[in-house]
Amino acid sequence: MADALTHHPGTPLNAEQVAALVDGTLEGATELFFEHVSDLESAMANDVVFFRAGLNEMGRGPAQSELEAFAKTAAGLLLVEEGTDVDGRVCIRVANPGLAAAQLAQHWEAYIAETPMGVHATAVVEEGAEVDISASIGPHCVIAAGAVIGAHANLVSGVHIGAGSRVGDACVLNPGVVIGPRVDMGKQCVVQANTVIGSAGFGYVWSGSAHVHMPQMGGVQIGERVEIGANSCIDAGTFRPTVIGDNCLIDNHVQIGHNCKLGRFVILCGKVGISGSVEIGDGAIFAGSSGAAGHISIGAGAKIGAKAAVTSDVPPGATYAGNPAVDFGLHQRMQVMLRRMARQKN
Amino acid sequence: MADALTHHPGTPLNAEQVAALVDGTLEGATELFFEHVSDLESAMANDVVFFRAGLNEMGRGPAQSELEAFAKTAAGLLLVEEGTDVDGRVCIRVANPGLAAAQLAQHWEAYIAETPMGVHATAVVEEGAEVDISASIGPHCVIAAGAVIGAHANLVSGVHIGAGSRVGDACVLNPGVVIGPRVDMGKQCVVQANTVIGSAGFGYVWSGSAHVHMPQMGGVQIGERVEIGANSCIDAGTFRPTVIGDNCLIDNHVQIGHNCKLGRFVILCGKVGISGSVEIGDGAIFAGSSGAAGHISIGAGAKIGAKAAVTSDVPPGATYAGNPAVDFGLHQRMQVMLRRMARQKN
Amino acid sequence: MADALTHHPGTPLNAEQVAALVDGTLEGATELFFEHVSDLESAMANDVVFFRAGLNEMGRGPAQSELEAFAKTAAGLLLVEEGTDVDGRVCIRVANPGLAAAQLAQHWEAYIAETPMGVHATAVVEEGAEVDISASIGPHCVIAAGAVIGAHANLVSGVHIGAGSRVGDACVLNPGVVIGPRVDMGKQCVVQANTVIGSAGFGYVWSGSAHVHMPQMGGVQIGERVEIGANSCIDAGTFRPTVIGDNCLIDNHVQIGHNCKLGRFVILCGKVGISGSVEIGDGAIFAGSSGAAGHISIGAGAKIGAKAAVTSDVPPGATYAGNPAVDFGLHQRMQVMLRRMARQKN
Repeated sequence: MADALTHHPGTPLNAEQVAALVDGTLEGATELFFEHVSDLESAMANDVVFFRAGLNEMGRGPAQSELEAFAKTAAGLLLVEEGTDVDGRVCIRVANPGLAAAQLAQHWEAYIAETPMGVHATAVVEEGAEVDISASIGPHCVIAAGAVIGAHANLVSGVHIGAGSRVGDACVLNPGVVIGPRVDMGKQCVVQANTVIGSAGFGYVWSGSAHVHMPQMGGVQIGERVEIGANSCIDAGTFRPTVIGDNCLIDNHVQIGHNCKLGRFVILCGKVGISGSVEIGDGAIFAGSSGAAGHISIGAGAKIGAKAAVTSDVPPGATYAGNPAVDFGLHQRMQVMLRRMARQKN
Repeated sequence: MADALTHHPGTPLNAEQVAALVDGTLEGATELFFEHVSDLESAMANDVVFFRAGLNEMGRGPAQSELEAFAKTAAGLLLVEEGTDVDGRVCIRVANPGLAAAQLAQHWEAYIAETPMGVHATAVVEEGAEVDISASIGPHCVIAAGAVIGAHANLVSGVHIGAGSRVGDACVLNPGVVIGPRVDMGKQCVVQANTVIGSAGFGYVWSGSAHVHMPQMGGVQIGERVEIGANSCIDAGTFRPTVIGDNCLIDNHVQIGHNCKLGRFVILCGKVGISGSVEIGDGAIFAGSSGAAGHISIGAGAKIGAKAAVTSDVPPGATYAGNPAVDFGLHQRMQVMLRRMARQKN
Repeated sequence: MADALTHHPGTPLNAEQVAALVDGTLEGATELFFEHVSDLESAMANDVVFFRAGLNEMGRGPAQSELEAFAKTAAGLLLVEEGTDVDGRVCIRVANPGLAAAQLAQHWEAYIAETPMGVHATAVVEEGAEVDISASIGPHCVIAAGAVIGAHANLVSGVHIGAGSRVGDACVLNPGVVIGPRVDMGKQCVVQANTVIGSAGFGYVWSGSAHVHMPQMGGVQIGERVEIGANSCIDAGTFRPTVIGDNCLIDNHVQIGHNCKLGRFVILCGKVGISGSVEIGDGAIFAGSSGAAGHISIGAGAKIGAKAAVTSDVPPGATYAGNPAVDFGLHQRMQVMLRRMARQKN
């Protein structure tokens, strides 16, 4: 166990090794060894930093404060684009400095989080559960009968896996994660602490005198490389699984209702709430605290603004904002008009 | 333990047995046995499905896609209303097909979730706690001194019950649920995973130099047959308990502040936030992500729209929407007017 | 363990002892002993209550119902301001009755929650972790290698402390709290159940074919006397820690993104969502369900209204409301104008 939980420093790399790892071109020479990616302001000589001199996705260049921080950084190695003036300092030229930094940080972080093998003495593995010999089942985990845990999966501590569920190879489930019954999770997923997947959906039928719970037996089907934040909830489907496609990114405090179907590469930012039976196309993005009413369809590539409340279908590629959400252009005009009128009336 | 966590298939029933269970009338004959309720599209021959040909609560009939799915379903047994044309297929006529399906699914689901008895070897039951001999205390649960666990209660795993709290008969507390001290929960409640009940409310007094916490000693009083979703919070009252009436339905990520008083049959959908000291009358409904400011009163049967922010008392039976929430009719007129003006100005 | 989880009644105090504890002046005499603070309506003879006859922070005096409750209360001892007419009953005059009540309740509550010492037999303390001999590590806690637990800290049950993290003296971590790696928490903090601190922030770089996770290695730095509610999340910073200043109050279901910097005495009410890299000045207040977009700055003492969505910098001391949030005065005029127009058009 000790290895899994201990913070090791990463293996130091020299500048040539860093260049090879990020597939870049080294300019200049240094005898230093590096072991951390850092930011411009707090970097020390044996840190690597990244800087993007050109325009970002929003068409904006670096702020004055960033330019100054870049000029003054104490970092011993810079990850920069072709053409960026480095004032004679040692640098590595790459196509995408941010990506190179992420790859490098992952290299060191992965070393730190090296997965231990085996089942901790305090974990409870029910008869009939299958745990791969290379998986790590940490303290106080519970694996119910019929569950299957894949190779190199890492259940850190206090994780509950329900009956008949499958955790794919190399998944990381952080402390307190609860996976209900009938959940199928593909390989290389990461779930942050205290998130609940496969809880019974909110489905009731009024009998005339009380609400009768409709059992939610469909479970959840999660693709590969899905990342889910902390304290989020994905409810089990009623008859068929709630579906989360490959490569979705789901932040903290997100709620996904029963019977939803998310495509691939969908991004749900913090506190997003998706009601039941919503379909979301590939690559759609919900900004923080936005939400969708039940039984609607969000087209591929659609963008939903922060705190927006979507109440009807959204076409592919559209941008919606407001409550109730409307096309972003209309929303902007409404806001501008309203402010102008309110100011005039005073 | 194995029984509690294993997914058994339900006991197969023949068509006559299904008809008896849902109090309906069988038309036609089949030798098949059934063991699942399913939906129209994915049903197989030994599945039961339900279909509602008439108008639903919103005055709408089935969509074209539903009519087609009903025509094509491979299900071997249909639950339908009187008068629905089943094209010669085997069916059971009932007053409410959805309700019949829920009852049937509960029958099979209940079999699956059959409660085991006893206290798991890894659970910690403090001296002075009382656990009924028919209750199930799963792995890694903690029952503090003075707590009382009723007959057939099922604490699945990792559940914490605080000092002096009571869990009524046949309650189901899912993994990671935390019940603070001085919580009284009536019978047949269901709490989904990682929900927190009886945490200290957010009450402070400014001393002139710092916020001094007012201890929240009132606990929580929960009625019977209350259902609470995952990752929700109900805070303890300051001097008297926060009260949740019988048959309330509370979804995921709901927050109920200290000293609130909910009547019976109140429905709070996902992500609803109720500030402290709010009174909510019987049968009121808060749609997803709506909320109420503190110290106000929501009348019985009131309906609050999704993402609405209620800041003052709401009369019984009223429907409110918007932020700040106003009467639904006024809200609609404001929205329509605003959109019309914004479109004209371009 | 038993002491930590058992509800003891507080030590009874006589009126002179209560007066000394709250630094007030006793008027009248009683032979009763007191052991609870209560509210006006439910108090019994041996309870203490508080009442504020003057104007509160909002410039309002007590409601008629409160005046009546004060006239009729059965409490044996009243905490009141100078000049309040008590109709001959026994009272203690103090500068701030609410504060006196909180101090008194804390006295009794503290007795109740007296911290036990030692490590429960079911807790897992990794080699290389340091636990102060006066700390209490409850059932099923996990303390990773390199973690440090301070004097009189109380980890109630099922708490996970990540590698290299520090929990300061006299902190209370309630059941199911998860502290990730590289979290530094000052003394006397209180964290309610199932909250997650130091989870990986939501940071990704698009590679051209997939989102690559930027490891979040900065951890979280939490000051002293910070109180955090249940089911909340504070994400780890990317390279430098996310910072929470001394004396902040954070309610339930609050999300604080990576790289945020909160000053001292900041108040975040229930369900507030703060995106990444937001700076919040001392004493700023976010009301329930409000939020801030990433990379903006909220001035010291600013007030953000319930459900407001702040999308740009807010000056110190300003009050903002609405979605998108604007100055409160403008927001109010917009609302009033809109309602008037909507009513006229009908």
